[in-house]
Amino acid sequence: MKERIRLPKLIDKIVSAEEAASWFKDGMVVGMSGFGRASDAKEIPLALVERAKKEPFQLDVYTGASLGPEVDHYMVEAGIIRKRGPYQAEKLMRNSINEGITLYTDMHLSHNAELVRNGIIGPIDFAIIEASAITEDGLIIPTNSVGNTPIYAQYADKILIELNTAQPDLEGIHDIYVPEKAGKGRRQPIPIVDPADRIGELGIRVDVDKIAGIVHSELRDAPALIIEPDEETQVMANHLIEFLREEVASGRVDELPVIQSGVGTVANAVLNGFLESDLTDLELYSEVLQDAVFDLIDAGKIKIASGTSITLSERYCDKVYNNIEKYADKLVLRPQEISNHPEVIRRLGLVCINTALEADIYGNVNSTHVFGTQIMNGIGGSGDYARNARIGIFVTKSSAKAGSVSSIVPMVSHVDHTEHDVDVIITEQGVADLRGMAPKERVKAIIDNCAHPNFKDKLWDYYNRAVEETNNAQTPHILEEAFSWHIEYKNAKKKVKA
Amino acid sequence: MKERIRLPKLIDKIVSAEEAASWFKDGMVVGMSGFGRASDAKEIPLALVERAKKEPFQLDVYTGASLGPEVDHYMVEAGIIRKRGPYQAEKLMRNSINEGITLYTDMHLSHNAELVRNGIIGPIDFAIIEASAITEDGLIIPTNSVGNTPIYAQYADKILIELNTAQPDLEGIHDIYVPEKAGKGRRQPIPIVDPADRIGELGIRVDVDKIAGIVHSELRDAPALIIEPDEETQVMANHLIEFLREEVASGRVDELPVIQSGVGTVANAVLNGFLESDLTDLELYSEVLQDAVFDLIDAGKIKIASGTSITLSERYCDKVYNNIEKYADKLVLRPQEISNHPEVIRRLGLVCINTALEADIYGNVNSTHVFGTQIMNGIGGSGDYARNARIGIFVTKSSAKAGSVSSIVPMVSHVDHTEHDVDVIITEQGVADLRGMAPKERVKAIIDNCAHPNFKDKLWDYYNRAVEETNNAQTPHILEEAFSWHIEYKNAKKKVKA
Repeated sequence: MKERIRLPKLIDKIVSAEEAASWFKDGMVVGMSGFGRASDAKEIPLALVERAKKEPFQLDVYTGASLGPEVDHYMVEAGIIRKRGPYQAEKLMRNSINEGITLYTDMHLSHNAELVRNGIIGPIDFAIIEASAITEDGLIIPTNSVGNTPIYAQYADKILIELNTAQPDLEGIHDIYVPEKAGKGRRQPIPIVDPADRIGELGIRVDVDKIAGIVHSELRDAPALIIEPDEETQVMANHLIEFLREEVASGRVDELPVIQSGVGTVANAVLNGFLESDLTDLELYSEVLQDAVFDLIDAGKIKIASGTSITLSERYCDKVYNNIEKYADKLVLRPQEISNHPEVIRRLGLVCINTALEADIYGNVNSTHVFGTQIMNGIGGSGDYARNARIGIFVTKSSAKAGSVSSIVPMVSHVDHTEHDVDVIITEQGVADLRGMAPKERVKAIIDNCAHPNFKDKLWDYYNRAVEETNNAQTPHILEEAFSWHIEYKNAKKKVKA
Repeated sequence: MKERIRLPKLIDKIVSAEEAASWFKDGMVVGMSGFGRASDAKEIPLALVERAKKEPFQLDVYTGASLGPEVDHYMVEAGIIRKRGPYQAEKLMRNSINEGITLYTDMHLSHNAELVRNGIIGPIDFAIIEASAITEDGLIIPTNSVGNTPIYAQYADKILIELNTAQPDLEGIHDIYVPEKAGKGRRQPIPIVDPADRIGELGIRVDVDKIAGIVHSELRDAPALIIEPDEETQVMANHLIEFLREEVASGRVDELPVIQSGVGTVANAVLNGFLESDLTDLELYSEVLQDAVFDLIDAGKIKIASGTSITLSERYCDKVYNNIEKYADKLVLRPQEISNHPEVIRRLGLVCINTALEADIYGNVNSTHVFGTQIMNGIGGSGDYARNARIGIFVTKSSAKAGSVSSIVPMVSHVDHTEHDVDVIITEQGVADLRGMAPKERVKAIIDNCAHPNFKDKLWDYYNRAVEETNNAQTPHILEEAFSWHIEYKNAKKKVKA
C-alpha cells in the first residue's frame, strides 16, 4: 500500500485503526466520506466501536449521505452517535432516531457544505476519508464517491485517511471543484454548462500538515441492495418514458433533456426502460450512479453520466470495477455540492425523477415521514433537484401495504416538496402533469390520473365536501378530517399489534 | 408623448385604449407589466373593463407580481379574469379566488419566466407593457418595475405598449438580462458576482414588428399602502438587527451580508432600524425597493440597492421621482427572474427577510393560507430567497387577532417553506436560530424564544404528549390534534358570526 502514498513525507503517518480511534474525544464533531454506501470510512469506525466497548463516548457524525453498516449500524449499536446528518438509510440508525436516541438533522444535500462554511456544522475535529491514493503533490484521490469529503477535509482540524487497496481505483474520473465562501465579489459562477464539463482537480487538495494518520484498509463497501422491479414499478417506468417522449415530440423540450434520477428500484427501472427505447445519447447529471447506468453504457446509449457516487450491487461491482477503462470516459464524480447545486441544475434544465412516500390531492409531496412522525430516510437531494428542475417528477405506487393504503391522500402528513415544486406525479395508474395548474385543476389531474381506483370515490368525496365547507376557497380542506386516512390506518395497525 | 417614441416608424402605431381593447378575444392569455403596484398596465385594462360592460369575455392574466386596482379590482369586478398568476395582493381578487370564481396559480416568482419559456404558460397572445420611452433602436424602457415584462415581450404574439408620460422616467437604471432557454451548452452562467453588477441592456429588446399598438397613458400607479410600524413591529426589527450584528461580531459572516427584505411594514421597519444603527455600506439584492431604502440613501448608508421594482407611498413618490438624479447611481432594476434567481441569491450569500403567517414548533412556515384553505396573497419570492439564502429569516408577531391566536402552532395548516428552508424565526418575543438543528432541538428554540407567553404551556403540553404518543419519534405529532388550534379558532369565529 505504500506505493499508493506518492508523497513520501506522509509515509510515516501510517498508523493502526486502533491508534487513530484512540485520538477521538467525547463530544467531537466528525465529517466522514461516504455517499449512498460508497466510499464509506470503515476501519476507523469499526475501531471506534471496539473502543466504545471499554469506555463510553459520543460523536456527532456528518457524511455525504447514507452509509453502510459500519457507521449506521455498528456505531449506532455501540451508542456512539449523538447526532447524525445529513442523510441516512439504515434500519438501526432509523430506529435510533425514531426512539429519540440519536438526533438527526435531515437537510438538503447541497446545503451541507454551506453549513460547514458558515460555522453552523462544526468546528469539525476530524475528517475521516477513504482514498485510493495520495498523489505526489498531496491530492487525495477518493474511491467511488466524493460527497462532502472536500468540504470536511478543508474545514476539519485534522484529517484521517483510510487508504483502501480493495476499493476501486478510479483516479482520473473525479472532478473536484469547491466554491469560495458565498459573498459579494468572492464566489464566482460555477462554470458548468454541459454535464461533461470538468472544472476542477482530479483529487481533493488538502493542507497535508493536517493529515494526522493514514490507516490501511482492505474492507469493501457494503454493496447496494437492489430490489428487482415488480410489474407496477415497470408500468411507472413506462409511463415516465412515454411522458418524456411526448415532451420531446411536442417541442416543449427541443431534445432529450439531461436527466437526474433518484436512488432505488424505480430509478433503476426507469433507466432500464431507456435500454429498450429508441431514446439515445442520454446525459445524466445525477447523484448516485446505479447498476442501470452501466448497462446503458454497455448498450452505447450514454453520452455522459455525472454524479457524486457510484453505488453498485455485488455483481455489478465486479463487472464495472474490473473493466473500469471501458467506462471511465463516460463518468464524472463531483462533490455533492456541485452535483446537487441549484445553479447548475437550473442552468442545465434537468428532468428530475424522485420518489414520494405520499402525495396529496393538491400536489404536495411527503418523501420522509410516516404518519408525519417517523422518519424513513431523509429529504436527500430530492429538494435540490425538484425545486430547480425544468420538470420535477415524483413517482410513487398509488397504494401501499397490499393495496390497503392510498398513496394519494387528502393532505400529506409531512411536506417536503410543496405544491410549487412538484411538476408531475406518476403512479402505475398514470401521469398527472401539474405544471401551471391552480390547486383545483391539480385535484382533477391527480385523482383521475394517479389515484388507485379503490380510493378515487373517497378522494372525490373528501374534496367535494371540502369545497362546500370552505365555500370553494383556493385550497379546500376540512381540517377536522385532513389526516383521518392516516389516523384510520394507524389505529388499524395498532389493533393488529394488540 | 411622440418625442418618447424615438423610433419613428412606431409613431403610426399609436391607438386609443379602446381600440387596443377591442383586439382581445375570449380565452386569450395576457402577460402584463407590473410588480408590487409599480409599472402596471392601466389604460388598456380599464378599457377592457368598459368593453366587458357590453360583451362578456375572459382572459388569463399573468403579471410580474401584485398589481393595483385597475386589474385586480376593476377587471375582477367586471368578471374578466379567468385565471391569474403568479401573485396578487388585492382584496377583491383574493375574494374572487377564495370563492372559486378566479383560478389562481400561485408560484415562485423566479419560476414564472421558465414556465413561459417551456410553453406551460401560453401561448401568450398579448403582452401589455407600461413604458416611459422607446429608444431609437427599439428598446422599451420600463417605468418603475421590470418584473416579467421582458419574458412576456419575448414570447407574446403581439405587444401593446402603454407609453406613460406621468409615471417616472427612470431611463438608465434598468439592467435587462434574459437567460437563454435552459439546456446543456446553451444557457450560460448569470455573470452577477456583486449586487451592483450590470450585465444587460438599458431596456427591453423586442421584435418591434410585434408591437401592435401604442397607447398614451397619464395614469399613475396606485401608491403603496404603508402601515406605520407598531411597537411589536419595532421590537421585531430590533431583534433582527441585533441578530445580524451578532453574526458579524461572531465572525460567522465576515462583513455585513447583502440583504433581501420582503414587502411590507416589517421590512420597512427593519430597514428603518439600520438608520439608527452603526451598520453602514448596506447592499440590497431584493425584489421591491420601498420607502425606507430611500431614507437610507439620504442618510448615506446604502452602497447599492438592486431590485425588480420601486414601490413607494404617495409622499415618497414625489420625493424620489422629482429628485431621481440623487438616487439613480445607487439603483438597479432587473427582471424578477434575475432579482430572484437561485443562482445569484446563493452566490451572493444573501440574508433574506420574509414574513410568515404562522410557523410551527418544528420550523415549517405558512406564508399564504389562512386555515390551510383561504389564500392571502401568495408565496411570491419568499421561496426563491429562503431556500437559497445564506440565512433565511422569517418574521411574524407571536400572536394575532388581539392576542387570541398564537402564530406559533403545533402544525402549520399549509406549508410554503419546509423545516429545511427556515433558518431563523423572529417574533417580538425573540429569535430562534434553527440552523443545523434537529427537529427536537428546534421545538425548544421556537417555543422558548418565539412563542407568546400565553401559549407556551399549551405548546409544551402538545409536544410532550406527542413525544409520549410517538415513542419520541423524529417529529412527534398527534395527528388527531395537530390542527385543533386552528379548528378551535375557526369555530369560535363561526359562533361570533352566527
